[in-house]
Amino acid sequence: MRALLLVAHGSRREESNQEVRELAERLRAGSGGRFAWVGHAFLELAQPSIPEAVAAAAASGAREVLVLPYFLSAGRHVVKDIPEEVATALREHPEMRIEVAPYLGAMAGVSDLLLDTAVSHSPAAG
Amino acid sequence: MRALLLVAHGSRREESNQEVRELAERLRAGSGGRFAWVGHAFLELAQPSIPEAVAAAAASGAREVLVLPYFLSAGRHVVKDIPEEVATALREHPEMRIEVAPYLGAMAGVSDLLLDTAVSHSPAAG
Repeated sequence: MRALLLVAHGSRREESNQEVRELAERLRAGSGGRFAWVGHAFLELAQPSIPEAVAAAAASGAREVLVLPYFLSAGRHVVKDIPEEVATALREHPEMRIEVAPYLGAMAGVSDLLLDTAVSHSPAAG
Repeated sequence: MRALLLVAHGSRREESNQEVRELAERLRAGSGGRFAWVGHAFLELAQPSIPEAVAAAAASGAREVLVLPYFLSAGRHVVKDIPEEVATALREHPEMRIEVAPYLGAMAGVSDLLLDTAVSHSPAAG
């Protein structure tokens, strides 16, 4: 059973955290049952943490978690913090398998998404 | 003639700025001539600024600029800084028309991009 975990930085601005929760909700709604569990986690300033979310996924019966880093660049959070939090989660749940997908900014489709938005958002129509 | 301007925050980490430049290059390559000019700008810590980029677009003959905010949430940068920089650019180039598209995190396709990445990144195949 696979789980999907959207990981964002977390913000002092509650609306930004809420945007992440709503995006995870859209992932859940759009996943069409391909993931047994879909959730979110934050690195800082908001809960749950990655280990807390992995514990929730494990409690739901998932044995594999795919982490989707909701970050734009390969800074410290992507390169160091997420792997460290994943390692902590694995120490607490050694029965789990956790993989980390490319971060959003490195996903091959991000340029197509931007171009599609640009083409559909015609200034002449504004 | 339309121009496309990818706007990012800018980073002290030069690799992050380079990621933005390369993404703008991918947009240029993928735009198939639908935009007369494709470029990038930063709010802080790197050049060019939005007014500098708008000046370059204007010099190339563009009269419309679509700004694509490369941001994940509707924080101060999206809500306040980008509109202020756009207003500055318009004062310097009143002949231009500048529109601002939704920021990346608010683009309707972002959840599909994440889901497509998740489905294609099978943990079992890792």
